[in-house]
Amino acid sequence: MTDYTIHLDPKKMPDAWYNILPDLPVPFPPPLHPVTHEPITPDALSMLFPPGLIEQEVSPQREISIPGEIMDVYRLWRPTPLRRAYRLEKLLGTPAKIYYKNESVSPSGSHKLNTSVAQAYYNKVSGINQLTTETGAGQWGSALSIACRMFDMECTVYMVRVSFEQKPYRRSLMQTFGAKVISSPSDTTEFGRKILAEQPDTTGSLGIAISEAIEVAIKSNGKVKYSLGSVLNHVLLHQSIIGLEAKAQLESVGDYPDVVIGCVGGGSNYAGITFPFVPDKLQKGKHIDFIAVEPTACPTMTRGPYAYDYGDTGKMTPLLKQYTLGHNFIPPGIHAGGLRYHGVATLVALLVKEGVMRAVAVHQNPVFRACLMFAQTEGIVPAPESGHAIRVAIDEALKCKESGESKTILFNLSGHGHFDMTAYDAYLSGKLEDYELEDTVLKSAEKCIPKW
Amino acid sequence: MTDYTIHLDPKKMPDAWYNILPDLPVPFPPPLHPVTHEPITPDALSMLFPPGLIEQEVSPQREISIPGEIMDVYRLWRPTPLRRAYRLEKLLGTPAKIYYKNESVSPSGSHKLNTSVAQAYYNKVSGINQLTTETGAGQWGSALSIACRMFDMECTVYMVRVSFEQKPYRRSLMQTFGAKVISSPSDTTEFGRKILAEQPDTTGSLGIAISEAIEVAIKSNGKVKYSLGSVLNHVLLHQSIIGLEAKAQLESVGDYPDVVIGCVGGGSNYAGITFPFVPDKLQKGKHIDFIAVEPTACPTMTRGPYAYDYGDTGKMTPLLKQYTLGHNFIPPGIHAGGLRYHGVATLVALLVKEGVMRAVAVHQNPVFRACLMFAQTEGIVPAPESGHAIRVAIDEALKCKESGESKTILFNLSGHGHFDMTAYDAYLSGKLEDYELEDTVLKSAEKCIPKW
Repeated sequence: MTDYTIHLDPKKMPDAWYNILPDLPVPFPPPLHPVTHEPITPDALSMLFPPGLIEQEVSPQREISIPGEIMDVYRLWRPTPLRRAYRLEKLLGTPAKIYYKNESVSPSGSHKLNTSVAQAYYNKVSGINQLTTETGAGQWGSALSIACRMFDMECTVYMVRVSFEQKPYRRSLMQTFGAKVISSPSDTTEFGRKILAEQPDTTGSLGIAISEAIEVAIKSNGKVKYSLGSVLNHVLLHQSIIGLEAKAQLESVGDYPDVVIGCVGGGSNYAGITFPFVPDKLQKGKHIDFIAVEPTACPTMTRGPYAYDYGDTGKMTPLLKQYTLGHNFIPPGIHAGGLRYHGVATLVALLVKEGVMRAVAVHQNPVFRACLMFAQTEGIVPAPESGHAIRVAIDEALKCKESGESKTILFNLSGHGHFDMTAYDAYLSGKLEDYELEDTVLKSAEKCIPKW
Repeated sequence: MTDYTIHLDPKKMPDAWYNILPDLPVPFPPPLHPVTHEPITPDALSMLFPPGLIEQEVSPQREISIPGEIMDVYRLWRPTPLRRAYRLEKLLGTPAKIYYKNESVSPSGSHKLNTSVAQAYYNKVSGINQLTTETGAGQWGSALSIACRMFDMECTVYMVRVSFEQKPYRRSLMQTFGAKVISSPSDTTEFGRKILAEQPDTTGSLGIAISEAIEVAIKSNGKVKYSLGSVLNHVLLHQSIIGLEAKAQLESVGDYPDVVIGCVGGGSNYAGITFPFVPDKLQKGKHIDFIAVEPTACPTMTRGPYAYDYGDTGKMTPLLKQYTLGHNFIPPGIHAGGLRYHGVATLVALLVKEGVMRAVAVHQNPVFRACLMFAQTEGIVPAPESGHAIRVAIDEALKCKESGESKTILFNLSGHGHFDMTAYDAYLSGKLEDYELEDTVLKSAEKCIPKW
């Protein structure tokens, strides 16, 4: 019989995250103070984050134990299944073996819950009972809502107005888990009131929502902390459980990947699936092709410069070394909302820069073609973001068909598309546009990158 | 550590369905011809169904082998996990053990795929390449669309107009799997055109959609067959894999249920979770409390008479012995669309009538309260239909809290609620109504039940 699903014995679920910081090929470029341009000290972050997370942000430890309380929540859906995509392989007629790690089975429907649970926990044990964050399409807001519920904490989510109005299902999902969801800009913050006075009809933006959430934390006298869903080292750390499990699962069937693929917005799910394999390449000389996939509409790593830039539009964050299209860059409205970010995690950027990994950009329509091929063979409707990884996995498998190689391809299915059916609707009715950014747009966006 | 998830080794997945027909405590009351009232012959069904399914409808075999081709598709999501709801138990403070079989992990998001795959297969091997069916909210249409895609067949779904317009996501889901979805009433059938001419503004109904789908099959000269998602013996047979797996999973942790619970619309998911345990009660004298849960808005088994009645509003089906509110009965618009059926499967009705099982009815608001308790502890947003089973599982667990008994409670989580967030929205904003049918409504509905 055919083993479609490779389960990891729950007793063998990893009990430590993998921290890539001590294994980097070059030193980690520190975040810089947005004004002084001096390396920022960990305690400068204490207004937003609890000590446990700040420690992890700079930890030199390769393995960081996962506390039992987090393990207990992880066990609601972890270990996640690793699947061999036999039916997709057959459709493609490829000699390649295609495996995918199915993170869509989490309660929030994506990998985001791996870090939201950890972040809620470290806040809780430091005496915090209230978290605030922003959400665009709603994936991250959902994940933090569920995590806060699991640790009996309050959660306030600033949801970009256009999504709040157009994606009522995501809002209801957050409310089902007890979160307070506020349309942003709102009258609950000074910044929100300022924007509302200036542009009462604005659709809102992630930049505005971030500013509102951060304002709440800063003005709370330490009562409320802020939570971020990607980019930072501690977020990527928590996602390493994806790759650690996948590695153990592949080992259990005597396999090892030649290619590891993930989609990249901020970079956390991609880091999750790839980082645990990186030491094998750097220290043991294994040949592994790590492919970071981004949309041509937001070609951060394939076309942006490697530079220090702000993480947000409002320039409230430290300067981070990264590939960036400029913090003012507003990407076209593609349906993979999670990939519409001007920058990328420093850790991912560094590894691409150093040639340990490579980045490719793909168009929206080919991505949805891949989503349909995947859905119709594997039965799972993927999130448009995950579709980017699927597209490249299919492309790699087709290359194997030409060359006759039977490579082992592993990709991360970061989430399902149950709340993205409008995107499928647009694709099926031929209404999706493909975007290729013009150089002039890119040049003008890059101008805002700080130089000194 | 805590074992939340009890996986069944894929190699131990049952390779035969359980057919309850030979184990019934009294003879099975045959379907009757709608006009002559004589028992109907199997071949009278051949215009709608292929030989393989008609055979199963009347088979005296206790075990019916699952063909390898079906097993191969089942393996895309089966065996499904059995979960111990530790967090829910803790919230309730109950000494009871609560287990649930998680059928929501299927590609279509519910148990329906267990039978749609089998039905597509038996049609395919009899030379049929095209199936037609109706769908209300879209669960069954989605399941048949996916099944047809897996066997490379065409699928046409008549979707009730009001759902077609109000539930575009379910429609997109079916289209993603390649189905042709037609708003019903439509101009593609004689019956549809007649209705459109008479009532151009109708919202449509399941009764009309059934008639359209059946007309297509009947007029196709054997090219197109019709497919039904519940009620019939062969449909319930295919669902037995739910209970067979659950039984093996409980056995693997040394447990056995005192109470088995499922929600009942047509009865197929309920039959699936319960029937494999029935011989233990009837033949081995095990004390098992089987609870069939229905909405108070559609109290078929708790308030309807046990009688022969039509399966559809249009009186096109044979007369089936069942509990019924009358084939003309139109239940209030509760959100558990899958439970809005005037009748129930003959097999379930018979076992309730014989006292082997019992039926209870619950209100909509308490159901959603239970859905939220479940979501907030177990992390899964349940379908409103499944919420009925959860409500009673919680009630039984609370009884244990009072009595101090530590019963083992098993229920079927028939599906997730990702496409039902409008219902959650209504509940969260306090807009859900509870319905208790008035006797006069019931009396008038019952008047249409044929007497002779």
